[in-house]
Amino acid sequence: MSQFDNVSVLKAANVYFDGKVTSRVVMFADGTKKTLGIMMPGEYEFGTEAAELMEITAGDLDVLLPGETEWQTIKGGEEFNVPANASFKLKIRAVTDYCCSYL
Amino acid sequence: MSQFDNVSVLKAANVYFDGKVTSRVVMFADGTKKTLGIMMPGEYEFGTEAAELMEITAGDLDVLLPGETEWQTIKGGEEFNVPANASFKLKIRAVTDYCCSYL
Repeated sequence: MSQFDNVSVLKAANVYFDGKVTSRVVMFADGTKKTLGIMMPGEYEFGTEAAELMEITAGDLDVLLPGETEWQTIKGGEEFNVPANASFKLKIRAVTDYCCSYL
Repeated sequence: MSQFDNVSVLKAANVYFDGKVTSRVVMFADGTKKTLGIMMPGEYEFGTEAAELMEITAGDLDVLLPGETEWQTIKGGEEFNVPANASFKLKIRAVTDYCCSYL
């Protein structure tokens, strides 16, 4: 879907890595949460609490998922899953617009 | 207010200046619209169609409003208005989180 309806949005952004990664929290009526974010080119490592579905709306990146030794290339329109309580690495090549769902 | 309720949010970001300025569109039940955005340090010029209220949630910038010759310093918690059909210049000193209302 291209938009989320009947949601709440926090006014203040989450800001990470000196603003090179930022996101907005979107809360749904069923109690679930997503973040809509932007990642500027660079290399980052993130940790999860809940499992995550990362949908890449636009962008170009490589991801190293937990337990893997090979980086995967992900482009706009593609997605990947990250398990709970894990860490993953990203190499962002082009400005990346994402939607992260907490599962 | 710290959050917007009962709104729609577009999934895809607006991306300007190679991603150094990005924003998300939030649509309200009364037909009005706001954008929530991030500006990275740099210098930018923007044009308005509608008049705008720019609330700076966090950040540090100078703004040159249309018709003015003196730059004003704006910090987090402050705001400024821009008239319709005008252009204004920004010098962003620190990562800036904003909420723009179209009046």
